[in-house]
Amino acid sequence: MLTPEEQLRRLERLRALMSESKTDAVLIADNANLYYLTGRVFCGYMYIPLAGDPMYYVRRPSELYGPGVVYIRKPEEIPAHLGDSLPATIALEEDALDYSTICRLQRVFDSARCVNASPLLRAARAVKTQAELDKLRASAAKHEHIYRMVPHLYREGMTDLELQVEIERISRLEGCLGQFRIAGSSMELYMGNVLTGDNADTPSPYDFAMGGEGLDPSLPVGCNGSLIRNGQAVMVDMNGNFTGYMTDMTRTFYISEISDKARAAHQCSIDICAEMQRMAVPGAKAADLYHRALEMAREAGLEAEFMGHRQQAGFVGHGVGIEINELPVIAPRSRDILQAGNVIAVEPKFVIQHVGAVGIENTYCVKNEGPAECLTCEPEELVSLI
Amino acid sequence: MLTPEEQLRRLERLRALMSESKTDAVLIADNANLYYLTGRVFCGYMYIPLAGDPMYYVRRPSELYGPGVVYIRKPEEIPAHLGDSLPATIALEEDALDYSTICRLQRVFDSARCVNASPLLRAARAVKTQAELDKLRASAAKHEHIYRMVPHLYREGMTDLELQVEIERISRLEGCLGQFRIAGSSMELYMGNVLTGDNADTPSPYDFAMGGEGLDPSLPVGCNGSLIRNGQAVMVDMNGNFTGYMTDMTRTFYISEISDKARAAHQCSIDICAEMQRMAVPGAKAADLYHRALEMAREAGLEAEFMGHRQQAGFVGHGVGIEINELPVIAPRSRDILQAGNVIAVEPKFVIQHVGAVGIENTYCVKNEGPAECLTCEPEELVSLI
Repeated sequence: MLTPEEQLRRLERLRALMSESKTDAVLIADNANLYYLTGRVFCGYMYIPLAGDPMYYVRRPSELYGPGVVYIRKPEEIPAHLGDSLPATIALEEDALDYSTICRLQRVFDSARCVNASPLLRAARAVKTQAELDKLRASAAKHEHIYRMVPHLYREGMTDLELQVEIERISRLEGCLGQFRIAGSSMELYMGNVLTGDNADTPSPYDFAMGGEGLDPSLPVGCNGSLIRNGQAVMVDMNGNFTGYMTDMTRTFYISEISDKARAAHQCSIDICAEMQRMAVPGAKAADLYHRALEMAREAGLEAEFMGHRQQAGFVGHGVGIEINELPVIAPRSRDILQAGNVIAVEPKFVIQHVGAVGIENTYCVKNEGPAECLTCEPEELVSLI
Repeated sequence: MLTPEEQLRRLERLRALMSESKTDAVLIADNANLYYLTGRVFCGYMYIPLAGDPMYYVRRPSELYGPGVVYIRKPEEIPAHLGDSLPATIALEEDALDYSTICRLQRVFDSARCVNASPLLRAARAVKTQAELDKLRASAAKHEHIYRMVPHLYREGMTDLELQVEIERISRLEGCLGQFRIAGSSMELYMGNVLTGDNADTPSPYDFAMGGEGLDPSLPVGCNGSLIRNGQAVMVDMNGNFTGYMTDMTRTFYISEISDKARAAHQCSIDICAEMQRMAVPGAKAADLYHRALEMAREAGLEAEFMGHRQQAGFVGHGVGIEINELPVIAPRSRDILQAGNVIAVEPKFVIQHVGAVGIENTYCVKNEGPAECLTCEPEELVSLI
């Protein structure tokens, strides 16, 4: 599904990292990585030698044709196809595939030294190509359109769930794929979050910026059916996956009136985003961005509300693309250095007691020069719903 | 969140399996297993010794209190808390957690023999308790309600996506949690599938009963924006997760008229379900159910359309509960033997060229005596949408 030129661009990125780490071949089975390297998802394995054409060992779908496609029933058939060109070192996706699957693949390649492919893929995917940026911009345009519609969806007496469902509906009709891809198995989210009032302050088990009780203890995050009341904030942070690539965007609305403290915190979030946009240049340390954001929150007297109140998240931004938690990570102990082509979501949010969550989130692309490009350009101010 | 009695019931099931396999302790981190054993999801680990009370080593959420709760920052802190009672054999979730995480936990318990906990958990969860059946029945009641509404949601000129979005909306307003939990990382689905016409015949990479092109190559399954046309079937197979436990249910609708072959295939699906319900008694071999279903399809002259046409799925049913792919598996090489308390989705479906997918899916509970109980009791016949 990728053009040959685009695939080659991505393979070259990966191969530079393979070469640095003395890896002869990479075997890919994770859906997000398959999508990155082929432009589609299939059930099977992509085998990438350091030199030479990649091979595709496919189980499903049937009827997938193309150069290098070989149908197999099980991975044990792969070495026979490779013949004499078995790798001495093969990288497997140790952070993405389950232990049993990796052990099985290690036995398949029992003559090879097996190393971890996940850091290579994470590093490759952290710098987006122009084609990837085009997909992110297309998602951003639809994402912005959805946020413009929010005031038209609100009706007096709605719960957080009811408003979220109407946003879900128009998102889907605009082509939102729904799927919210998260690396790792510990985080789960359905289509995003609408948070209002003190529900925004309910600690969640997941490592998202904000929490929320959720509708059921089996999925303890997000809206909980609270009535949206006068004086409360309504934070909207919904799925921006319209193209296979996600933008991440948050805007905050309110009903009737909102406290001065909440207004000040929201303005602080806007100011932090502007500062992060300015600081996000190639060579900048991600940790420095975090510390500056925290400093600005502190200067505004809002450290206790920054990134949550009863439970505070330990980051202010993260890479985003095919998955919601890519590199770089904007966190105090991050060692990531920003590079041109990084796409980062910056989300300095505040939880104000009895009001709810306020603040914004934008997705930025780090450019070769100058401030980062903001992909999610809607007005950032608090918007009244009535 | 579970009552102490209910938790003990589940722990006793697990401990019987631990005892059989000479396992001293189990460490749980997977969300589905944590939910099964505690009634909620948290970020951290549940440690279950063969004898004695379980411990909860929690990272998030903050403010989780209760007997056995210990806050930790990383799993390396666990052995110090266990003191002298370190296990000689510990079971880890090797099929559910990624390779890197399991290797880290193996180092944490480096004095212990590490074995695979996943088969124990799968076996325990395959037999539902009364409290679990109550949740499944509550999901089924809402799931049925949604399907009764489908004819009221259809408007002439709709696409498959537009109809699906309206079903998603009323499902969510009825309390559907959205999250569609699937064991393993290779299958992905957002909220279910509405399939119409020849899109139902598009092979998918995922191991679901039916395929579909999907809206984008990044998620190649399900509706693709096809206009719903006269003479076509509309198969509705939507998410039944209203309680943390999912029922699985499919009904088929059609527009204006439908071919005799499609009608015959739909009736064959109803007949197979009735036969499976009759055969699903404790002690029955799951493989025998599959072979009987295939035989009935063959007798009806529909073998080439059974479970797909261009690509055929290799099963006719599967266990369901917290995740959509639990034990037992109703497949030709399954070694599973049915037990009272198994909850199985049976989905004998047919893809008829130029019409689409027809057939039904019901969720059944295997009883001590007599036929299985059908949880999804709506009328099974084809329903005209106009």
